[in-house]
Amino acid sequence: MAVTVVGSIAFDAVRTPFGERERMLGGAATHFALAASFFDEVRMVGPVGEDFGAAELEVLHGRGVNTDDIEHVAGGKTFFWKGVYSDNLNSRETLDTRLNVFEHFEPKLSAASREAETLFLANIQPALQLQVREQCTGARFVALDSMDLWINIARDALTRAIGGVDCVILNDEEIELLTGRPTVVGAARELLTMGPSIVVAKQGKYGAGLITREGTFWLPAFPLEQVIDPTGAGDTFAGGFVGYLSAHRDEELTPELMRRAMAYGSAIASFNVEAFGTERVATLTGEEIAERVEELQRITQFTDAPVALRG
Amino acid sequence: MAVTVVGSIAFDAVRTPFGERERMLGGAATHFALAASFFDEVRMVGPVGEDFGAAELEVLHGRGVNTDDIEHVAGGKTFFWKGVYSDNLNSRETLDTRLNVFEHFEPKLSAASREAETLFLANIQPALQLQVREQCTGARFVALDSMDLWINIARDALTRAIGGVDCVILNDEEIELLTGRPTVVGAARELLTMGPSIVVAKQGKYGAGLITREGTFWLPAFPLEQVIDPTGAGDTFAGGFVGYLSAHRDEELTPELMRRAMAYGSAIASFNVEAFGTERVATLTGEEIAERVEELQRITQFTDAPVALRG
Repeated sequence: MAVTVVGSIAFDAVRTPFGERERMLGGAATHFALAASFFDEVRMVGPVGEDFGAAELEVLHGRGVNTDDIEHVAGGKTFFWKGVYSDNLNSRETLDTRLNVFEHFEPKLSAASREAETLFLANIQPALQLQVREQCTGARFVALDSMDLWINIARDALTRAIGGVDCVILNDEEIELLTGRPTVVGAARELLTMGPSIVVAKQGKYGAGLITREGTFWLPAFPLEQVIDPTGAGDTFAGGFVGYLSAHRDEELTPELMRRAMAYGSAIASFNVEAFGTERVATLTGEEIAERVEELQRITQFTDAPVALRG
Repeated sequence: MAVTVVGSIAFDAVRTPFGERERMLGGAATHFALAASFFDEVRMVGPVGEDFGAAELEVLHGRGVNTDDIEHVAGGKTFFWKGVYSDNLNSRETLDTRLNVFEHFEPKLSAASREAETLFLANIQPALQLQVREQCTGARFVALDSMDLWINIARDALTRAIGGVDCVILNDEEIELLTGRPTVVGAARELLTMGPSIVVAKQGKYGAGLITREGTFWLPAFPLEQVIDPTGAGDTFAGGFVGYLSAHRDEELTPELMRRAMAYGSAIASFNVEAFGTERVATLTGEEIAERVEELQRITQFTDAPVALRG
């Protein structure tokens, strides 16, 4: 009765126009887990090195995340990513990537993790995503993320992985790259023919779209006057979205439910980017999230009124 | 009792992944006028050459646009732009720009154009925008567009022009460039200190934002499975937005009214990109626009529901 997330746990070194951190807790599974923890029990699966210690676990335990399946690799070092963002935060350059213990990661899931009803396959090798998917016999809802690297070098395995999940959560450009279609709507509809019934297209600072066979929904990002560090925003969004759906797993998966899930994911992601790494989400409260969802609703609604159109 | 638009009237040569046109009617004033014509009388001001004839006027007259102030320059050629779009339409390259009669354009407005209650200063030299603004003593609502070129080479004049208008309609990146602020919200709020009370941030295929001193509103673009030619989408949006406000000039300029204006602008712009140049908007009906506004509302609304947030 929980969400299992399998993915990277990392130390990030990040420089943005507003400051820098030389070593902060990061990784897709971390950001996802913290966000999802507002809605459901979360079990994290991923490898760390000997440099991963009490301080990092404390952040996760502070949000009630179950870390029993975090694999501590003896003699190993945690996955490390170093990047710098451009002045307007629109692009980032990777300065260093050290896979470390992530290089030979073979997901080992405990019975409890395998039996979770919700599974999120964060961005890892598609072959591993397939492996994990097969192990998780209890999963009733499975979502998957990926990246351009796997689309380019492991397209077949990724296609198979996508065929086995309910929901794909990708950037709009990744969806277009994967399908070769130039519009996100056309590309997402093609993904829907590959197995999933839900496609979420992340649009970075612009928001996200939800595409199902029944229709679409588009949610602008929560507007922020200052953004400090975009790292992990996409995984935080996914954590809120999937976590929300997991908490409502006994209800019918209606468009209204999915739209709400998008709003909660978006709200939490907007907090994530207001500070470095996990710093803001670690201290976030449910009340703050709920306020931002309300505000998001207020600033995206309009009413129509009769108008005499000429011609 | 009309909208006056001053700006470029052009022939465009465009190639997109879906086809090409060697010479089609275009220009900011053209796209704006056709969109605004669904709401109010429109008077176009701009220069054309001897190559501009009955076929082009017919498109404008077909939508009831008043072309009395289109200046036919003897011996001149119409402004010409040639561009090619990338495979995913995300970027375009200019292959040729011939200013022709536009190079020495000095706006000459008839009494009727000067007395219009609504004025749109399309993207032209800021010094000319200032001149026109001063001539239009009857204007109660003035909006302005610009581009990165003028921000870079005529910033002072542009700042003065902005100081004299009610509404600025720019791409988000232009607003950020103009103010040096890295977020569109921060940048737009700085623009609001320069004179205007309304900033519209166009976000291309992602939609648009409305920023006033009272708050913000964000509208995703109408989702399209196929986009044929994005040329003129921004001016079409502006025409729908400003035209809608002009038609409701006797009402109070409430957030609800402005949000509706955004929706109508967005709906018309979505038709614009479904065919080359003015081809689709020229045959568009009010009923089609109204349907798309309704659909835009349906696909952007969500309702909240109580949720037990953990922590």
